[in-house]
Amino acid sequence: MANYRAPLEDMSFLIDELLDAGTRLGELPAYAELGVGAELTTALLDEAAKLAGDVISPLRRVGDEQPATCENGVVTISPGYAEALQQLGQGGWQGISADPEHGGQGLPELYSTAAFEMWNSADMAFALQPMLSAGAALAIAAHGSEEQKQAWLPKMYSGEWAGTMNLTEAGAGSDLGVMKARAVPEGDHYRVYGQKIFITWGDHEACDNIVHLVLAKLPDAPEGSRGISLFIVPKFLVNADGSPGERNDVYPVSVEHKLGIHGSPTCVMAFGDSEGAIGYLLGEENRGLACMFTMMNEARLKVGMQGLGMSVGAYQEAVEYARERVQGGVPIIQHPDVRRMLLTMKSLNEAMRALVYTEALSMDLAHAGPEDERAAAQVRVDLMIPIIKGWMTEVGQELTSLGVQVHGGMGYVEETGVAQFMRDVRIAAIYEGTNGIQAADLVGRKLGRDGGGAMQDILAQVADTVSALRAADNEDLTAIAGPLASALAGLEATTTQIVASLKEDPAVAMGASFDYMMQAGYLLGGWHLARSALLCQQRIAEGTERDFYARKIATAAFYAEVILPRCESHASAQGGAGGQLRHYREDWL
Amino acid sequence: MANYRAPLEDMSFLIDELLDAGTRLGELPAYAELGVGAELTTALLDEAAKLAGDVISPLRRVGDEQPATCENGVVTISPGYAEALQQLGQGGWQGISADPEHGGQGLPELYSTAAFEMWNSADMAFALQPMLSAGAALAIAAHGSEEQKQAWLPKMYSGEWAGTMNLTEAGAGSDLGVMKARAVPEGDHYRVYGQKIFITWGDHEACDNIVHLVLAKLPDAPEGSRGISLFIVPKFLVNADGSPGERNDVYPVSVEHKLGIHGSPTCVMAFGDSEGAIGYLLGEENRGLACMFTMMNEARLKVGMQGLGMSVGAYQEAVEYARERVQGGVPIIQHPDVRRMLLTMKSLNEAMRALVYTEALSMDLAHAGPEDERAAAQVRVDLMIPIIKGWMTEVGQELTSLGVQVHGGMGYVEETGVAQFMRDVRIAAIYEGTNGIQAADLVGRKLGRDGGGAMQDILAQVADTVSALRAADNEDLTAIAGPLASALAGLEATTTQIVASLKEDPAVAMGASFDYMMQAGYLLGGWHLARSALLCQQRIAEGTERDFYARKIATAAFYAEVILPRCESHASAQGGAGGQLRHYREDWL
Repeated sequence: MANYRAPLEDMSFLIDELLDAGTRLGELPAYAELGVGAELTTALLDEAAKLAGDVISPLRRVGDEQPATCENGVVTISPGYAEALQQLGQGGWQGISADPEHGGQGLPELYSTAAFEMWNSADMAFALQPMLSAGAALAIAAHGSEEQKQAWLPKMYSGEWAGTMNLTEAGAGSDLGVMKARAVPEGDHYRVYGQKIFITWGDHEACDNIVHLVLAKLPDAPEGSRGISLFIVPKFLVNADGSPGERNDVYPVSVEHKLGIHGSPTCVMAFGDSEGAIGYLLGEENRGLACMFTMMNEARLKVGMQGLGMSVGAYQEAVEYARERVQGGVPIIQHPDVRRMLLTMKSLNEAMRALVYTEALSMDLAHAGPEDERAAAQVRVDLMIPIIKGWMTEVGQELTSLGVQVHGGMGYVEETGVAQFMRDVRIAAIYEGTNGIQAADLVGRKLGRDGGGAMQDILAQVADTVSALRAADNEDLTAIAGPLASALAGLEATTTQIVASLKEDPAVAMGASFDYMMQAGYLLGGWHLARSALLCQQRIAEGTERDFYARKIATAAFYAEVILPRCESHASAQGGAGGQLRHYREDWL
Repeated sequence: MANYRAPLEDMSFLIDELLDAGTRLGELPAYAELGVGAELTTALLDEAAKLAGDVISPLRRVGDEQPATCENGVVTISPGYAEALQQLGQGGWQGISADPEHGGQGLPELYSTAAFEMWNSADMAFALQPMLSAGAALAIAAHGSEEQKQAWLPKMYSGEWAGTMNLTEAGAGSDLGVMKARAVPEGDHYRVYGQKIFITWGDHEACDNIVHLVLAKLPDAPEGSRGISLFIVPKFLVNADGSPGERNDVYPVSVEHKLGIHGSPTCVMAFGDSEGAIGYLLGEENRGLACMFTMMNEARLKVGMQGLGMSVGAYQEAVEYARERVQGGVPIIQHPDVRRMLLTMKSLNEAMRALVYTEALSMDLAHAGPEDERAAAQVRVDLMIPIIKGWMTEVGQELTSLGVQVHGGMGYVEETGVAQFMRDVRIAAIYEGTNGIQAADLVGRKLGRDGGGAMQDILAQVADTVSALRAADNEDLTAIAGPLASALAGLEATTTQIVASLKEDPAVAMGASFDYMMQAGYLLGGWHLARSALLCQQRIAEGTERDFYARKIATAAFYAEVILPRCESHASAQGGAGGQLRHYREDWL
């Protein structure tokens, strides 16, 4: 088990060549002074890679084997985590893409995405801390008063203070409308009461303060999801000079014993068991869920990244083992079926990375692009997020399991460390909206709102890529064009079909939604690999011989041949949603 | 978390209606006096169901949470396991399908298969004990002298003594030819030396003796796999009166810390560290691997059953949770995507069960059928075993993971108990020959030896079913016929293709082998569901209205609509084996 090594070559290729971020972002007012471009990319990626490889990655097995614990209202995290968190904060990574006005670095989401991939490959349980902190900070940045922003954000961006999200209750998971936590006004603040479960990094002593964001209901709030407000509930109240003061009435009750991400303390949190936890309203009353929605895209993109990050970690372990392990007189990397598993991992990893980096750039364009392009970029982001979250976390399960399989019996022994990727990543298909909810969001909300228009726009771009592949008159690219064209035709057909179902009988569309999401993910991943292959072939034609380019084309060709056909079965399976799936009697299950 | 309840209705339907075991087995000389038929089926299944549900199933979480340990050469198993093993032995289940001449019950493998499904659904870690004991006993029954059989078998069938299989060494996993364990002749016995790893239920004190079967090399044995011999190495030497006597020089060194099956002590075993372990040659010198091969089919069928057993356990938990968990004002079982997951689990479970019971019957016919039919039955068994082992353990991974998904966040918390199914079943795709090896066996050995002839025979039977479905002139059956015919055409084509590849370029065939195996599994599972639907429709047409029949037809229709299309993508993916998979440079991985 070696430390994680960031795949810098592929990352730089995507950022600086395929996405051409220097040109597309570097000239925007928001980033012009920050020097976005190839030089910065290299510097940032190198620094992140060192932190991920040398500092975070050695903690992965430690966190797994010495999980966070909770005793007498105090959470103790795994050895080494506190120091690594400190380094993360000191390096400026906690606020990398946050507003410089409140202490952030102001860099594009694209860079933060690449760094976040590295944290996850190194140790997903650890990476959840910066992820949740960033989410909480984003909510404050988006909905806080200037005073609130000044009070909380700089310390969160510096990593001195942490942030958490407190949504779920025992009876309220995907359906937050039925929650019981309540908040009572008291002068300029509120008293918050209630118990929250599944609170990621809910408590620890690695930071001087923890800024809990808590959903709760005001007295006489409307029923359901429109009656929920969002509160800032700090672990320590803040003194006039900004330093942490008196302890607030919020305590961890216990830490869950989970399948994976053992290093991440998943807490039951008790608010207001004694005198009531002091909280401050964030945003408007009864608009708490809407506030949460504003950071949902970022959060869901990051969960999708966990699918990628863990799969890359698993791949590195698997390929290393396959080179060393000899059976039948040769290293098993030479066995055709082992090669199939490794190439499946590698090609899907690169497809996922290309997809998510592309949409991280879309996020930057939606946020800081030319004014007249922002709305279109946001529509695209909204459409792609459920695919990124759902498809990538499903693929992450398959690939981390393949990582175990390549190891044979050794993969099943925990000390080998490869089973941990599979255990850790399993939660990513569940939290931040189960993948069933992602599929419902994709079909019901995202296709529904424009009759599939935004999807058809993307598919038109895929068609352009098919044409370009064919026009290149190159054998390798032509071989990619065929399967891509066929998968494209499939998604065009199911998009039309599912949009029609949505009007006629939404339950049929919902029954088909998961397979639709998977079909879209496989196609779009393949599209970005095909775009990459096209660019690489162009570079070679221009005279730039580079082993990386030839490899990229071969990887895209494998994906087209072996992975893209998965689109067919996901397309065909959708037909069943109008048949037995719909009519099967509930008592027959 | 309720105790497991055996799906008796489906089991009886398969045994007594679809397979008509009473007629096909009951009249054979081997079984005539045992009263094989519907009455015996009911009695046996009921008894097994009680044992599985009331005795074994409550141990599943115990074994997981209080795993077997090893200290100072003594293995301590999980609380309650010893008592349950005793009940299993006393009930006659350890020797249920073994020769009555040495204390077995002599019943068909079909019954033993149904019982074994139940043990696995209840607790796979526990069920490994009777599985390994049965395997060891089978080897002795097949290759032992009459004296050896008398000495070892009766106590193994009664459950008083256990059996283990000692094959793997640190450097010799799938490739046993390179093993280092050695045996030196000494009078009428041998001294055995060496260390074996991954020995399932390698040691414990629940039985009075443990009969280890050990692969080792004789001095001057030929190189490689043709120089390996098989030895009986008991934990306690046996006194003249048959009672366990002096301790033999074989000890457990440690117990592995595994992803799952915690209740099963997976031991490192040391043979002959002091004076040499006394062993007795089983079968002929240097023929040890051939001896192992004779029980491979039974063992691989049983590992396939683990995929089924765990999936059934996970399904029962999932459907119960989905009925109780309310989100959005309704139980989540009403959400279309949850329904999709549950029906995917249910239909695949029934497909797997139909496939494996059918081939358990083939085993009985190969063993005890009319003389002139045995060879053909054996050919069929040989062909189907790698599909049963490989496909069912892959499907088992997917379905147990769906069991977690249906539970949402609760599924990720270990105490819920559903993640255990996923952890436990993960090993089944690895041991007893990895699924890559199953695929290679299916294509290289089983298709290779007759140019795909046996497979074409099966496919001709599938074609007959398609014709019968169409001839029935029934809407439901016609709807099944279409997808089945299409999947059949796909497998006919890939069978021809892969047999051709095998001659031209075996590496291409091997690269395609895994997808071929999966394609075959999905088709054959669907075929047996279609056969079931046909029979149910016939019963209904004859006037027997039974809710079960209508449900079975609907389940088969769902499978045809939603699951069978998976054959397409597995077929298409095989094309890639001749392309990038073959040509991708090793240093590019």
